[in-house]
Amino acid sequence: MNDTICALATAPGGALGIIRISGAQSLEILSRIFSKDLTSAKPNTIHYGHISDIDEVLVSIFRAPHSYTGEDSAEISCHGSRYILNKVLELLTANGCRMANPGEYTMRAYLNGKLDLSQAEAVADLIASSNQATHHLAMSQLRGGISTELSLLREQLLKLTSLLELELDFSDHEDLEFADRTELMALANKIDKHITRLSQSFELGQAIKQGIPVAIVGKTNVGKSTLLNRLLHEDRAIVSDIHGTTRDTVEDTIDLQGVTFRFIDTAGIRQTTDQVEQIGIERTYAAIDKARIVIWMVDVEPSQEELNKMLVLTENKKLIIVRNKIDKTENSPFTIVKIPLIEISAKHNQHIDQLEQAIYQAADIPTLSDTDIIVTNARHHDALVRAQGHLQRVLDGLAQQLSGDLLSEDLRLTLDTLSEITGGQITPNEVLGNIFKNFCVGK
Amino acid sequence: MNDTICALATAPGGALGIIRISGAQSLEILSRIFSKDLTSAKPNTIHYGHISDIDEVLVSIFRAPHSYTGEDSAEISCHGSRYILNKVLELLTANGCRMANPGEYTMRAYLNGKLDLSQAEAVADLIASSNQATHHLAMSQLRGGISTELSLLREQLLKLTSLLELELDFSDHEDLEFADRTELMALANKIDKHITRLSQSFELGQAIKQGIPVAIVGKTNVGKSTLLNRLLHEDRAIVSDIHGTTRDTVEDTIDLQGVTFRFIDTAGIRQTTDQVEQIGIERTYAAIDKARIVIWMVDVEPSQEELNKMLVLTENKKLIIVRNKIDKTENSPFTIVKIPLIEISAKHNQHIDQLEQAIYQAADIPTLSDTDIIVTNARHHDALVRAQGHLQRVLDGLAQQLSGDLLSEDLRLTLDTLSEITGGQITPNEVLGNIFKNFCVGK
Repeated sequence: MNDTICALATAPGGALGIIRISGAQSLEILSRIFSKDLTSAKPNTIHYGHISDIDEVLVSIFRAPHSYTGEDSAEISCHGSRYILNKVLELLTANGCRMANPGEYTMRAYLNGKLDLSQAEAVADLIASSNQATHHLAMSQLRGGISTELSLLREQLLKLTSLLELELDFSDHEDLEFADRTELMALANKIDKHITRLSQSFELGQAIKQGIPVAIVGKTNVGKSTLLNRLLHEDRAIVSDIHGTTRDTVEDTIDLQGVTFRFIDTAGIRQTTDQVEQIGIERTYAAIDKARIVIWMVDVEPSQEELNKMLVLTENKKLIIVRNKIDKTENSPFTIVKIPLIEISAKHNQHIDQLEQAIYQAADIPTLSDTDIIVTNARHHDALVRAQGHLQRVLDGLAQQLSGDLLSEDLRLTLDTLSEITGGQITPNEVLGNIFKNFCVGK
Repeated sequence: MNDTICALATAPGGALGIIRISGAQSLEILSRIFSKDLTSAKPNTIHYGHISDIDEVLVSIFRAPHSYTGEDSAEISCHGSRYILNKVLELLTANGCRMANPGEYTMRAYLNGKLDLSQAEAVADLIASSNQATHHLAMSQLRGGISTELSLLREQLLKLTSLLELELDFSDHEDLEFADRTELMALANKIDKHITRLSQSFELGQAIKQGIPVAIVGKTNVGKSTLLNRLLHEDRAIVSDIHGTTRDTVEDTIDLQGVTFRFIDTAGIRQTTDQVEQIGIERTYAAIDKARIVIWMVDVEPSQEELNKMLVLTENKKLIIVRNKIDKTENSPFTIVKIPLIEISAKHNQHIDQLEQAIYQAADIPTLSDTDIIVTNARHHDALVRAQGHLQRVLDGLAQQLSGDLLSEDLRLTLDTLSEITGGQITPNEVLGNIFKNFCVGK
């Protein structure tokens, strides 16, 4: 923490590359390799000069505590050649900088009190966000959404604690003891519900973060592969238009209204139909099992037996029935009660937009307003689940009429476990390192 | 040229992404989407704020004429998520910016007199430079190396012109006419040699820029494939250490002492030996033809006939004979007069460093000092060749005792053609567009 770190903060390959430096020696080290002395440069200023014969650069100066890390720091804007960027990093390390570990800038920001831990984690999520939904969740967390929610919970838990203490004060009056417990129980239940809501939001949070899993199932030759290509192709075209750059291969996902949907086991669908037949029906079961949304493609009306079987298989899923090949007049239309049925022609690209709409609706994404807190981080979820366990012992104790002093330890554990999320109870270096190691270098 | 342009200046995928804006409306447009008014922001200052609910960013302000383009401009440092970067670009274009064309920033810098044309072209070369040699050439050109050389030539051509005019003034005195021509001829020859040197440096410049072409030839089973792997593997390991990131696949090139060497037609070498035999010897001829350096691998002493044949084939190339399998004692050592002979064991990784040294020496790269001008740009080479053509007519005219007024037009053409290199004679938009279209967007 006392040394000065450097790292490439941008991806290599652009017109510009930014190298970040942070730490007490930042300006001193930088001045050793830059054409001007920057040790007394004013904060938030930009300086033009050259780094030996390597490059002509712009240097931005930030001063503690008004920097991202809270330390003195600088950013060198170089021409984006790998050679130049490597040479500048070599020079910096030769002059006293250490190469930063992944996430070390943000870890320093956390340790210097610029962000709490959940906000720090949101930075990594924000950088990784690829659509509106993931971006929204990350921004909400970065702006302290979950921190606010947790301080609300903390307040209520402290109130519960003080009510229990009050109860203890009156514990000599045995007749008073039970009267207060109604309020205590009500408050504890309210807190429990709140934690449960947060904890349960994790499933949706994960789905949004990793893409809502969708399975396309149906008999051979019903048009699954054509539909998949329709759904994927549209998106890719749009994406490449917006980016204007070659895109990392995102395998079989589409973005609908800002939410990513991920198609499961499309390898099978993409194979020749013969092979799919050979692999058999187990594969379909497995795909349905992993899905949140199941698209069941048919071309003729399924039998009641088939329908019943599918309803059992998709009991906890959203099922969409897609009748394909509507251009073939020999296949008669049909309706199925209570299940969304979309009629399309994958081949002729008809009503694909209706299907997309149905897929989006099936995802059942709540309208994400700034006040909705959705937990997306496994560490947070883990802490919430453990906090629930502690709180359950409080609830059980209250129900069993245990005295307040027997409950206070579990209450304290509930509080401490929740505060792990924002970092209140986290200090050991290895724990912190674990949290930041999945960051990219330079952040 | 009057509109305000924006573009992503960094490669997507890093911790940070930089969006550049340039043009008279830069700060006005930026202020519409930024949380603070920046229209009166001081030059070379940095401002923290947010862009609607998209991101929290740092904005750097530059003021005309002290900016890269010479215009008012700004750089927005965002979190490096594609979603954020696209959204900010969308907002900028919705508020009056136009997406920049490739190289448009540098074209504006040129049109605003911040750089001459050869310097502008050096910017693209600098960004593309991947090793010390290409970086050095680009930096030298960016710092006006070729411009200085050309102004020297210009001076001498103007002197030649004035000497011819002087001659014309005295043309009434017929006895004076021929006396001066010695000096004229000497000067014209000196200029011609200078242009020829520059023009001839292009071959080396190209080789350095694209990698010095090396062919590995030899009989089946002599160990070509093993040697190639030895040569390539070493480099890749080092490179990935330095970068700390996955590297773009660079096919079959190695860097030796800062110079790239490119192996020709290694597809054949990588194939099974059976296939190579089927393809036959023509492929070897073609590889030698494209090479600058030929590595001839043998395991036993070649016959005089084989040696003679190879010497004819590699007449204008650098030939290195490599005796492989030195660990096999049944193969006796031998020497060959005047041809570098390196004894190695590709299999046991012996003396590969000696071979690398020999390859580097064979490239015959002059020690690149700041004063060496090597032409790397095809457009410059083309102009030099055309200028030489015009100058040749001047030389011919002088030899034929043509009078000065008949030579002045060719002299003027020589001057004009040379000044195309730094942009003096280039204005039409399509010509400029052609030069900048191979730049990356954002530069």
